Amino acid sequence: MYELQSYSRFMERIYFDNAATTAMDPIVLEAMMPYFTDKFGNPSSIYSYGRESKMAIEQARKSVAKLLNANPGEIFFTSGGTESSNTAITAAVYDLGCKHIISSRIEHHATLHTVELWNHRHGIKLSFVKLDEKGHVDLEDLRRLLETSEERCLVSLMHANNEIGNLLPIDAVGNLCKEFDAIFHCDTVQTVGHYPISLRDTPVHFITGAGHKFHGPKGVGILYVNENVTIKPLLNGGGQERNMRAGTENLYGIVGFARALELAMERYAEDSQYIEELKQYMAQQLQQQVPGVRFNGDYKGRSLYTVLNVAFPKSEKSEMILFNLDMAGICVSGGSACSSGANAGSHVINAINSDPNVVPVRFSFSRHNTRAEVDAVIEKVKESI
Amino acid sequence: MYELQSYSRFMERIYFDNAATTAMDPIVLEAMMPYFTDKFGNPSSIYSYGRESKMAIEQARKSVAKLLNANPGEIFFTSGGTESSNTAITAAVYDLGCKHIISSRIEHHATLHTVELWNHRHGIKLSFVKLDEKGHVDLEDLRRLLETSEERCLVSLMHANNEIGNLLPIDAVGNLCKEFDAIFHCDTVQTVGHYPISLRDTPVHFITGAGHKFHGPKGVGILYVNENVTIKPLLNGGGQERNMRAGTENLYGIVGFARALELAMERYAEDSQYIEELKQYMAQQLQQQVPGVRFNGDYKGRSLYTVLNVAFPKSEKSEMILFNLDMAGICVSGGSACSSGANAGSHVINAINSDPNVVPVRFSFSRHNTRAEVDAVIEKVKESI
Ligand SMILES: Cc1ncc(COP(=O)(O)O)c(C=O)c1O
Ligand SMILES: Cc1ncc(COP(=O)(O)O)c(C=O)c1O
Repeated sequence: MYELQSYSRFMERIYFDNAATTAMDPIVLEAMMPYFTDKFGNPSSIYSYGRESKMAIEQARKSVAKLLNANPGEIFFTSGGTESSNTAITAAVYDLGCKHIISSRIEHHATLHTVELWNHRHGIKLSFVKLDEKGHVDLEDLRRLLETSEERCLVSLMHANNEIGNLLPIDAVGNLCKEFDAIFHCDTVQTVGHYPISLRDTPVHFITGAGHKFHGPKGVGILYVNENVTIKPLLNGGGQERNMRAGTENLYGIVGFARALELAMERYAEDSQYIEELKQYMAQQLQQQVPGVRFNGDYKGRSLYTVLNVAFPKSEKSEMILFNLDMAGICVSGGSACSSGANAGSHVINAINSDPNVVPVRFSFSRHNTRAEVDAVIEKVKESI
Repeated sequence: MYELQSYSRFMERIYFDNAATTAMDPIVLEAMMPYFTDKFGNPSSIYSYGRESKMAIEQARKSVAKLLNANPGEIFFTSGGTESSNTAITAAVYDLGCKHIISSRIEHHATLHTVELWNHRHGIKLSFVKLDEKGHVDLEDLRRLLETSEERCLVSLMHANNEIGNLLPIDAVGNLCKEFDAIFHCDTVQTVGHYPISLRDTPVHFITGAGHKFHGPKGVGILYVNENVTIKPLLNGGGQERNMRAGTENLYGIVGFARALELAMERYAEDSQYIEELKQYMAQQLQQQVPGVRFNGDYKGRSLYTVLNVAFPKSEKSEMILFNLDMAGICVSGGSACSSGANAGSHVINAINSDPNVVPVRFSFSRHNTRAEVDAVIEKVKESI
């Protein structure tokens, strides 16, 4: 019943904002269902009914660990990407002796506001690495920052930028961190569930993930903590998650997270190719049909296959493009969802592009999207320019 | 389909551990369903599809605020009771200038471990108020502590103890705090959804709630922040929850929390009487049928109607009681769920009762329980003593 309703509703609307959040897969919901009203035992209770819940969580952890090529002991379930990044950064300061944070101006606010907080609150030194004209991290500048630092560093750089899609060379950054004994936190919220990740082969201390970015549930995420570092929890209380994250476990969320990641990895080869083609098709059509269009970020190079950030020439009309697309039932965004209420514009676009004469619009795709949708959106875009 | 399965399974088992977690009400699940696969828009997105999600959240907030007689602006959604208490205590230290925390040794670990952390980390002074023989807070001692404190105090005392059920005279404590300009955080995780609460008439700065304690979803809770105090978030990032709790909102969890609270309050009069009678029936039957049985806490006085903590005389056999009840499909607990893995026993029972010759067992009830279940449990208890 719900699924049918879902699909009919879905067809009226064109949803090109999959970097903000995605539709939960009905198969994921199916996996979660038994845990709502039936198998509801508290996973920390010692009786068998509680242990069944515990087993579901540990099964989920094993599955996630296997898919990310990590040990189950390195995977902790949290309430989402934001909590995971807050935990990693706070622990690096309190437990790992980092007194200098190196980050970038185009990080997600979950990172940016947290590193700024430690900078203000405890005088932790904060440096921002240089970015090139496409928005990529300047590795030479990163090396220089690490080399000249007198304190132990935390490097917090995101794997993929949620607004412009740029991908970080995670191994190169990790190796640099290793060379200078720095702690490396990588916000992988846009890549977990979207790319194969092998943590055993990646020099990183912390990564983060959020279920709702890859057709899983909202309200649940993961924090990977490399087994070579020992930290304390951000949320204190009961001994859940092996004393690393207190609070009664979000049982169905955890089960759903794991199921969504399994599906995403099974479908990776097919989906990533399909979505990349859709993205490049849209870029090409825009270039052919919309005069003066440009793109933010490195859309043809090291870039998320899910994200296309378009710079439209500014005009009275194009400034209303988000509004007009919305009126036509097309969901796209100007910046990231969590700051879309703010009217200061996107901090990412501001940091990489000082040209005030463009209007940035992010189109982000999932396997539910089609070429017909791209064509329909382009028609609307042309009317709105 | 799921509901039927749920009920048949449910009947084989006797679930007397409702203070640990409760079965989610199918009506609550029904309210959540549309938000999983259909109305999945990001509540922070500005297009209409996102605003629909936002409206669902604001509707939930209004409903919760109305039921607790607070302003919607005072209600913040979190991932659970633990996060809420961590936020309140941390904010009292960082933002409200509290340099002395007064708490009790029988608080939930979400409070206890957090106040201990601030004590260790930042040298915040920590005092524990005296408890009487029943485990109630000694109000004279609390007054003395407040009176003699040279710093601004945070008083963190729970409304109802999750293990022994004792209820705090919240107004009396709040008025004392007012007299001495102290901040008052009250862990109401066991009373939100179980008692009518009128925050406009209660002198308290922070209260907490967790959906799964009253037939709502896991992974979602609330923090009430009295409008007269201004604090900063614990989780930093996007501007969600009016900049008070970053992270993509747990949309269905929030909708489910509100629906569960609505149902709980509609049913309060009937359910509370029914459950109280069940509890007193069990206490009476135990006294009649089990020689030497006693009770921890003030079970006949100021006490949660949902919790009965029984002290069985210790013997080789009775030490195995939890195990034997589990074998018989009866779910009860020794301490709180989140510390049941630990073998140090219950910190609550240890704090109020130094008698090593008893075995404590908590029975906790919901409206799903029956007298027939009580009778069956008592038969099993007699065999296990
Ligand atoms: C790159 C990135 N990091 C972190 C987050 C925060 O994740 P969440 O909102 O699920 O907490 C997001 C999405 O919102 C993101 O895109
Ligand atoms: C009194 C009390 N406070 C706090 C909590 C913590 O709530 P949660 O585990 O949902 O975070 C619980 C239950 O676990 C509780 O009973």
